[in-house]
Amino acid sequence: MTGELPDGLLAAFEAYEDALAANDHEALAGFFVPGPHTLRGDATGLLVGSEAIAGFRASRPGVVRRGIRSLHVRAIGTEHALIVAENAPVAGGAGVVTQLWSRTAAGWQIEAAQVAASAPAVDPSIWRVVGTPLLAGASGGALSGVRVAVKDLFEVAGFAVGAGNPDYLRSGTAATESAPAVTALLGAGASVIGIAQTDEFAYSIAGTNVHSGTPPNPRVPGGLPGGSSSGPAAAVALGQADLGLATDTAGSIRVPASYQGLWGLRTSHGSVSLGGVLPLAPSFDTVGWLARTSGLLVSAAATSLDPERQLPVAARFVVCGQLVFAAEEDVQAAFVEAIDRLERGGYLPEPVDIITIDPLADLFETFRTVQAAEAWRSHGDWVDAHPGTLGPDVRSRFAFASLIDADEEAGHRGDLAEARDRLDAALDGRILLLPAASSTAPARSASGAQIERVRAATLSMTCLAGIGGYPSVSMPGLVVGGAPLGLSLVGPRYSDLALLDLAAGLAEGLEG
Amino acid sequence: MTGELPDGLLAAFEAYEDALAANDHEALAGFFVPGPHTLRGDATGLLVGSEAIAGFRASRPGVVRRGIRSLHVRAIGTEHALIVAENAPVAGGAGVVTQLWSRTAAGWQIEAAQVAASAPAVDPSIWRVVGTPLLAGASGGALSGVRVAVKDLFEVAGFAVGAGNPDYLRSGTAATESAPAVTALLGAGASVIGIAQTDEFAYSIAGTNVHSGTPPNPRVPGGLPGGSSSGPAAAVALGQADLGLATDTAGSIRVPASYQGLWGLRTSHGSVSLGGVLPLAPSFDTVGWLARTSGLLVSAAATSLDPERQLPVAARFVVCGQLVFAAEEDVQAAFVEAIDRLERGGYLPEPVDIITIDPLADLFETFRTVQAAEAWRSHGDWVDAHPGTLGPDVRSRFAFASLIDADEEAGHRGDLAEARDRLDAALDGRILLLPAASSTAPARSASGAQIERVRAATLSMTCLAGIGGYPSVSMPGLVVGGAPLGLSLVGPRYSDLALLDLAAGLAEGLEG
Repeated sequence: MTGELPDGLLAAFEAYEDALAANDHEALAGFFVPGPHTLRGDATGLLVGSEAIAGFRASRPGVVRRGIRSLHVRAIGTEHALIVAENAPVAGGAGVVTQLWSRTAAGWQIEAAQVAASAPAVDPSIWRVVGTPLLAGASGGALSGVRVAVKDLFEVAGFAVGAGNPDYLRSGTAATESAPAVTALLGAGASVIGIAQTDEFAYSIAGTNVHSGTPPNPRVPGGLPGGSSSGPAAAVALGQADLGLATDTAGSIRVPASYQGLWGLRTSHGSVSLGGVLPLAPSFDTVGWLARTSGLLVSAAATSLDPERQLPVAARFVVCGQLVFAAEEDVQAAFVEAIDRLERGGYLPEPVDIITIDPLADLFETFRTVQAAEAWRSHGDWVDAHPGTLGPDVRSRFAFASLIDADEEAGHRGDLAEARDRLDAALDGRILLLPAASSTAPARSASGAQIERVRAATLSMTCLAGIGGYPSVSMPGLVVGGAPLGLSLVGPRYSDLALLDLAAGLAEGLEG
Repeated sequence: MTGELPDGLLAAFEAYEDALAANDHEALAGFFVPGPHTLRGDATGLLVGSEAIAGFRASRPGVVRRGIRSLHVRAIGTEHALIVAENAPVAGGAGVVTQLWSRTAAGWQIEAAQVAASAPAVDPSIWRVVGTPLLAGASGGALSGVRVAVKDLFEVAGFAVGAGNPDYLRSGTAATESAPAVTALLGAGASVIGIAQTDEFAYSIAGTNVHSGTPPNPRVPGGLPGGSSSGPAAAVALGQADLGLATDTAGSIRVPASYQGLWGLRTSHGSVSLGGVLPLAPSFDTVGWLARTSGLLVSAAATSLDPERQLPVAARFVVCGQLVFAAEEDVQAAFVEAIDRLERGGYLPEPVDIITIDPLADLFETFRTVQAAEAWRSHGDWVDAHPGTLGPDVRSRFAFASLIDADEEAGHRGDLAEARDRLDAALDGRILLLPAASSTAPARSASGAQIERVRAATLSMTCLAGIGGYPSVSMPGLVVGGAPLGLSLVGPRYSDLALLDLAAGLAEGLEG
């Protein structure tokens, strides 16, 4: 300790520890200076403002039982003091807190705090299994040193597939060999460091899971990570993995990429083997990857895409106003601004054509009906045999799926074929630009209704690639209210690599 | 930002970030106020004093490449300011730093800092594989909810044994079933959450590993964890696991327990199955456990110890001055003070007898010669076939082991049998009390010579239980210079559970 110990400060510190031990939200809120400048940081990010801090507390479960191991107090003048304390949680580990206290009308209050606590061995919301590595790659390949997070839908030699549901995991058996998409990465020198979490059966784009919890979104503290490839995305965004191997049926790669500022590729339908991958809706299911850089995404894609079947694509871009309008207003504005910037910078060699797709409204209905019918065919028997195991949102989706009869499915299948032809005609070999999601990452505390609204809007935008079997890139570059948002490119079937190449060119224009 | 932005502060902040990016130790040291009060905290603990901070920097590999994502500056008067910054490391993740700057004669310098950075998926110095869980336990047992870290010498179904060496791991095959000691825990309801690191082939008590790194010691920032059960001990001390399943040949449970303030039990030789456990020196190898509480240690021991073979033991205690004198002086003082406290508190029903064991000096030589001969028999062929794979300390130990010829071994085996009889006679069914190690955790930065000195002194104390095949508890309760040190109880063969019971009674006396 240096300086005089200010009156009442230690009593305030002790009262704060008591309030923590009691998990008394009201008392805790009273220890922070009210207002927008108050800060609380930890390993997951920085909360700014007393409201954000109170919201965090309310969502945090349980009490913090800890003793103080050492205490360092630094008086700064008479009205401020810094306290640094080491604590010893009863559950093991060690913690450190740094707090700037100031004397206010309400007594001593905290203006800024940073908190460190021992972490679990592994974040169970991100990972199901982690190794150092779990499966080593071939030595000396192009992906040497690359650490892969494999979505828990892929067979990984020695492990059963869990699909985000512990009952499903228990009912499975260990795979004797890995899925071809996994083997391709291993053969190129990448190593599998773990099996990462997914929304149950990949039947969601929120990034939540009632069993393993919601992974963090390191780019949006307190925000949803996006799904269903929630674990691989969070792992890559956090730097815990370099590459996510994932699937995308209706946006499951593009949405988390958008929410977390990552590069994501949904491949052309049929272009990458789905062997050893748990299906959701085979008419739309695709394999793809998530990475922090376009370069790694290209290298990963090259391990599984057959170069003989890949096609070139010209740098002709189109925008569909109807799709942009599905997004929230601030997203629309950011998207329009980005397209303007790219045009002004000369990154779009030809003027962007505005196209209409009529009727657009029915597309999502058609997509989700066929998707649901196939999802039920994939998992209905298992879901029926395991009542009560699914979280509410995925359960309600399967309940809807169970009601679709053969006639309804057949009707929508006809619509689907027709929709694909219409999309092909409207796009005419050009690249569709659109926001990768209807919004930035919703708050974890958002209501079910809010999340459902965002979900419907986003799916109405992302389902086009599913319907057309098109490849689609989500690239980082847009920022809305401080949060990342992806720019999505949808190209002709089998233009995956060419599309990535064009996207890398646009990235430069978005940075500038 | 609130208040006026102090002159030169932002320039100092930016220069500090530049020095970090350049990993310029000298420049970095200049940014911290020199002296004993300067603080730097992170998730591993708090460093106190500018020297400790500079020492940490020197031992940290590589540069920190990151951009600043947001910056919050709070001026406090004219001479102090708090800076809170969010940063975005190039390698992914997010960081937060809180710094108290003060204006000194040398310009703006940091008085206190706390740093948060995204952690890897799993700490590879602690764990080889982690699951959520890796193997689930039977439902409803006495150990329900208990998470076990299994030392990487035990067979775990589905995984090969690594023994702390990646070449050894690669040369192995996945076990089809788990070792009996693992199965016993699973049967009692505990789940295996991971396979934890060990010093190579368990042939060390330092807690280092050149391949996977040195695990942290959460009780002694900058201190060695102790070994060879380094991973299980760190996992339990950090709260990442509740129970460590480990082995003790010459102190491999007791030493890390002592260094990290844990409860550890080395069982009576032969009392717990060594099936599926990689041997080091079968004449001395034992299975045991590490836990934060004596209660859990008792429950764990009950899963594997045959109650029919367990014997009672009377609360008669002895101390051997020769063994206490092997410890460092401050350890001797703390031990004597603890025994005094226990006597004064009435926790030792009879006066503690002082015994001598003559000749003591030869015991360690005898022990380590037979241990080495057996270690070579266990692993010599493999070590010979894999030159260059072992770290220097374990390599030198195997080199010594390779030189022991049959005559030398036979001679020491005779000495060993005779030593055991002498020990039995000297202890006469009583319980030997001694410090669990010759020192608290040495600094990670200690020289090889320092570590070797501590090692020899500690082994001269711990080898007695090995020679006698005795059970030995290391219980927390001594504190030397702020660091934990264990009190060791050595009891008659097959008094394991009775010994734990007596130790739990003493714990109360040490707390008082």
